[in-house]
Amino acid sequence: MRATLANMAPQGFRAMWAELAEVGRDGGTGGYRRFAWTRTDAVLREWFTGQAEARGMDVVTDRAGNLWAWTVDPDAHGPGLVLGSHLDSVPDGGAFDGPLGVVSAFAALDLLRAAGQEPARPLGIACFGDEEGARFGVACAGSKLLTGALDADRARGLTDAEGTSMAEAMTQAGFDAAAVGPDEETLRRIGTFVELHVEQGRALVDTGAAVGVASSIWSHGRWRLDLRGRADHAGTTRLADRDDPMLALAAAVQEARAAAERAGTVATIGKLAVAPNGVNAIPSSVTAWLDARGDEADVRTVVAEVGAAAGVIPVEESWTGPTVFDAGLRDRLAAALGTDGVPAPVLPTGAGHDAGILAAAGVPTAMLFVRNPTGVSHSPAEHAEEADCLAGVAALARVVQELG
Amino acid sequence: MRATLANMAPQGFRAMWAELAEVGRDGGTGGYRRFAWTRTDAVLREWFTGQAEARGMDVVTDRAGNLWAWTVDPDAHGPGLVLGSHLDSVPDGGAFDGPLGVVSAFAALDLLRAAGQEPARPLGIACFGDEEGARFGVACAGSKLLTGALDADRARGLTDAEGTSMAEAMTQAGFDAAAVGPDEETLRRIGTFVELHVEQGRALVDTGAAVGVASSIWSHGRWRLDLRGRADHAGTTRLADRDDPMLALAAAVQEARAAAERAGTVATIGKLAVAPNGVNAIPSSVTAWLDARGDEADVRTVVAEVGAAAGVIPVEESWTGPTVFDAGLRDRLAAALGTDGVPAPVLPTGAGHDAGILAAAGVPTAMLFVRNPTGVSHSPAEHAEEADCLAGVAALARVVQELG
Repeated sequence: MRATLANMAPQGFRAMWAELAEVGRDGGTGGYRRFAWTRTDAVLREWFTGQAEARGMDVVTDRAGNLWAWTVDPDAHGPGLVLGSHLDSVPDGGAFDGPLGVVSAFAALDLLRAAGQEPARPLGIACFGDEEGARFGVACAGSKLLTGALDADRARGLTDAEGTSMAEAMTQAGFDAAAVGPDEETLRRIGTFVELHVEQGRALVDTGAAVGVASSIWSHGRWRLDLRGRADHAGTTRLADRDDPMLALAAAVQEARAAAERAGTVATIGKLAVAPNGVNAIPSSVTAWLDARGDEADVRTVVAEVGAAAGVIPVEESWTGPTVFDAGLRDRLAAALGTDGVPAPVLPTGAGHDAGILAAAGVPTAMLFVRNPTGVSHSPAEHAEEADCLAGVAALARVVQELG
Repeated sequence: MRATLANMAPQGFRAMWAELAEVGRDGGTGGYRRFAWTRTDAVLREWFTGQAEARGMDVVTDRAGNLWAWTVDPDAHGPGLVLGSHLDSVPDGGAFDGPLGVVSAFAALDLLRAAGQEPARPLGIACFGDEEGARFGVACAGSKLLTGALDADRARGLTDAEGTSMAEAMTQAGFDAAAVGPDEETLRRIGTFVELHVEQGRALVDTGAAVGVASSIWSHGRWRLDLRGRADHAGTTRLADRDDPMLALAAAVQEARAAAERAGTVATIGKLAVAPNGVNAIPSSVTAWLDARGDEADVRTVVAEVGAAAGVIPVEESWTGPTVFDAGLRDRLAAALGTDGVPAPVLPTGAGHDAGILAAAGVPTAMLFVRNPTGVSHSPAEHAEEADCLAGVAALARVVQELG
């Protein structure tokens, strides 16, 4: 059966991919700008609904604005297996992060039907809203509102760069902002959720496998380093008399890399604010943000070491504990997707996903990753080979056979 | 004579200082915001004219907008000795940078007259316009227009942050922008120019002297470091797979300090631009600006070393060669201002001044520095002790005795 599925023609996948390719694409960078509750977002939602209806699926929108397409009514036939991901993007994002999971879900259903295998249980395909948080600053907003992890009033009050609130944006998009909130009815329909996603690193490259299974999402935190100095004239202040916070920044950047290497985590300083930021002025302050992910104890060690190197106590701005996916489900899928008795690779990830939000809410959840040859993501250069994408489609079809 | 002058009552100095203290002062920071061709600038010009007229001096405005007060007509009695400095400030600047030179010049004339020593030759006191370049971005704009070092059309077209051109700002201030240009007639009146300025470092603190004489203004350049990386996800990209330009920045910052220490120069990275500057994004680029000053060969060595550390060729955005003040004048003043046969300290500076612009144009020029206990300048914390300021007044009076 698996050989049959894997060998099927890729036309359906290619057609969907081509339809999405131009939606929200920036003509200059080639990257995507698909932000929540915009006209581009509406086009993507219309595309999703059209694909579902073409397959005879009914689409419902939940109270958080996520879309659910069902082969048969889960309220009548019991909770179903749900596949899917999201269609929105970061600024100048790639084509794969999100859409690959949605397109692959539809293509997997096509594969099964072409083989005469209509799923026995209700099969759902989800399109989560606002996963990247690019417009309002909160990632996984759709799934967090659904589970209650994000307070509805707080979400309604979030504003974008133009000062438009999420409530206003929802209203402009024709969505009922007042009704936003946790949606137990929708959650009850989900027997199991499996999200396929392009890998955002290169772990699979080393394993030689096109598809892997997620073990966990690392702990993840953000800290602010407030590096203080003394504003002074860059031409006349002797080196020995300077209190230049740029030197503390340099130490923090280097220690973030070194400490992460020692601990086996990742740590990044990607955002800075320099005051007064003048060519001829020694800065009075440099503010640096540290993003660190990994096992909690390791991450906290790294953060403390970076703070010590910079001479400050890092200020914690956010902390999310680890998400461990359902172990039984993980092992079952790794076995089902393995070759010659060798399970598919099982790997952790440093990125947050809607699957992690559902798992934290108690939904049996798994993730599949499709190999990314460069590991690049959140960039127009994000890529996966078509053969690997089709292997992902076949893997999702296999998941439906196993669980559906 | 010198003891007599130094012991005279400081009331005149204090009165002038108190009058200026509130002009253009920001109530929040306590710093000064005295920018060219603004209402605050007009108040400062009126104050200068009032002080001159109270001393029986005639004030003329040159074609570049600088003010010149004369005890007697230099066209009739030959080129004179000119003292003075400027009254404008950087944003949130201190009280001393500029005003100390103007106030001390008037106070020195008062000292001499109180001792019955009316200067024999014409004595001028200058108030240069737009020395800091805070509004239109070009430092020493008044003196550079006067000597022709700044093209009049280019100056007229410079715009401030609101898009107002210098020509429009001059017109609004009642000044004839169309007539702006080099002013040979004004230059011919200057036999010698001596600018007193608060020191912008701590070299005098180590000498134990309240007043020193300038030897030269260092060479000064600005370079841009274009540090390229690859935008990537901060959570999922393995350390080994990253191309993070923040590490090159860290190396550049550290090498700027280390190379400057080795070379005996100063070097500063005070301005950065990070893209995309997101907390969870490895930057695609970091642009850093390097300000370096000192002897030319030393500066060029430092810049090359910083570039090598960062893996880039620095792009030169500006270069100004050294200004060496008139050696005979320098030694004569150092001797006249010395104690017990020991000349006053002679020291270089890393900052640009109107005195440097005049020296470069061939005017016999000298500078005096007044001790700054912290070395801080361009900041509300800029300071000089009153006793040292009064020593500066006495020194200027001694200069008039020596040269005037």
